[in-house]
Amino acid sequence: MTDPVFNQIAIVGAGLIGASIARAAVAYGAAGSVSLYDASETVRSRAAAIGLGDVADDLGAAVADADCVLLCVPVGALEPVAAEAVPKMKAGAILTDVGSVKVQAASALAAAADGRVHIVPGHPIAGTEQSGPEAGFATLFRNAWHILTPLAEQGEGYAEAVSRLEAFWTRLGATVETMDAARHDRVLAITSHLPHLIAFNIVATAFDMETVEEGEVVKYSAGGFRDFTRIAASDPVMWRDVFLNNKDAVLECLGRFSEDLAALQRAIRWGDGETLFNEFTRARSIRKAIIDAGQDSGAVNFGRNLPKGDKDESA
Amino acid sequence: MTDPVFNQIAIVGAGLIGASIARAAVAYGAAGSVSLYDASETVRSRAAAIGLGDVADDLGAAVADADCVLLCVPVGALEPVAAEAVPKMKAGAILTDVGSVKVQAASALAAAADGRVHIVPGHPIAGTEQSGPEAGFATLFRNAWHILTPLAEQGEGYAEAVSRLEAFWTRLGATVETMDAARHDRVLAITSHLPHLIAFNIVATAFDMETVEEGEVVKYSAGGFRDFTRIAASDPVMWRDVFLNNKDAVLECLGRFSEDLAALQRAIRWGDGETLFNEFTRARSIRKAIIDAGQDSGAVNFGRNLPKGDKDESA
Repeated sequence: MTDPVFNQIAIVGAGLIGASIARAAVAYGAAGSVSLYDASETVRSRAAAIGLGDVADDLGAAVADADCVLLCVPVGALEPVAAEAVPKMKAGAILTDVGSVKVQAASALAAAADGRVHIVPGHPIAGTEQSGPEAGFATLFRNAWHILTPLAEQGEGYAEAVSRLEAFWTRLGATVETMDAARHDRVLAITSHLPHLIAFNIVATAFDMETVEEGEVVKYSAGGFRDFTRIAASDPVMWRDVFLNNKDAVLECLGRFSEDLAALQRAIRWGDGETLFNEFTRARSIRKAIIDAGQDSGAVNFGRNLPKGDKDESA
Repeated sequence: MTDPVFNQIAIVGAGLIGASIARAAVAYGAAGSVSLYDASETVRSRAAAIGLGDVADDLGAAVADADCVLLCVPVGALEPVAAEAVPKMKAGAILTDVGSVKVQAASALAAAADGRVHIVPGHPIAGTEQSGPEAGFATLFRNAWHILTPLAEQGEGYAEAVSRLEAFWTRLGATVETMDAARHDRVLAITSHLPHLIAFNIVATAFDMETVEEGEVVKYSAGGFRDFTRIAASDPVMWRDVFLNNKDAVLECLGRFSEDLAALQRAIRWGDGETLFNEFTRARSIRKAIIDAGQDSGAVNFGRNLPKGDKDESA
């Protein structure tokens, strides 16, 4: 086996992402050992019970010997957690995060900087709608993108720190890209943040339709709605923090989305089939671009995988 | 093997749904033979080439000996197609459809009624984002719902016709429900039509963001956007007809959706984290209801299945 990229990593926050990093670091030999800390005592015992790594009872103990500390907490918690972690870290160690918003994450981490540690914000474009330590699994990052947004001011050893962190994520199976934090936030606002907001919203709207019973919404969800509920099942605290911390980019996308939707609404009201057909055809072509770019495996059958009948596929 | 439900069925329109019915009817022994017709000569030759059934060169020949004629065409095409089919059909045969809007479908089919055939509109809650005869497959309807919306005025033999059609869809693996057409249209407006409209819209909005390159939208689509492009890849003609023919119910849902979205937008602008958290938590609970009701198989990993790295899962 190849040498580990880091002798020891520390993971702060043992949710889906933290737990998956722990599993992957062990499975792919990316770290010699894994220490973990979570602010919740319950989560700490659950993480210990399923053998995620060396679970410490305080944050200082978890990060003290780590060559790389990964903060896997909601974006809104980064600043206090970083402030507590940095003074306990070894000189020359790397501090990174996995937050979905990078301008704010960079400033939260940079606020804790004391010149002894290398701060390299990051964001894995991977996840499921599950939460908690039990949801983590080793292959989560395989074939996913991992975006690093290195800080502009780079001290001695910084470039090497970025390279090592890149090697770590590559070892977990990710393809690493480097990007400006502001650009990251604009791109993710449209590819991730707005889709999640829309999904949360449509599910809430469905809940409130008096003319349709909730049971019917659930029952006939295979018609398209189910895909939205899946996205809308993501962690509420994480997403609250995303929207609070990427406000401008999200509001910009949202404004355009609403304008475009108003145009479709008007086309429906006035029976303008040509506008509907043209817009739908345009939308379809981007799906083709995604398939062509190898970003998806192709067909999904949205009317199936309902485990209510028998599973016999023969006549 | 059990006797077929119908000695012969005729399928008009050899797209995803028509082709899947043809495949399923043969695979599960639901029909003794299958005749097909499609208005497009190209589609007819493609259907014949892949052995979907007896492809006829005119609609009259396809439906003449059928005990059940299934119109698998966009909702907007139902009226002229039914008008052409009914006079050629056997007395006592069943005429049904698979349209996503049922009030309009019922009136389109009823307009062709001559008292000789039994008209029973229907809608399978199943599909993929693929189109065309090659996209059809036998298991599409297994474990899916099939909704029948029988007409209010029922002549002699009508109840038996409904039962036989129910037996046919049951044989294909579906669970059949009977529902009032107007109720169907209200339920599907929120569970299917609005989700598709939103998906088409968000994809179009992403296209037009000058601050983000199209390549980046495709590249980072795993963050949530990809699920929308999948839905938005559905057939533009079919969906145009759905929105033109279920206008009132869709506009009602859309109005509520936009109101709710404006509230979330306001919460983001004013940094109201509590409102965001509460709404996201509420949305999450409906996902749980869907899982509990057995309407989905559970986790989806939205950051994976990107075939760009190697597939070796070992370290």
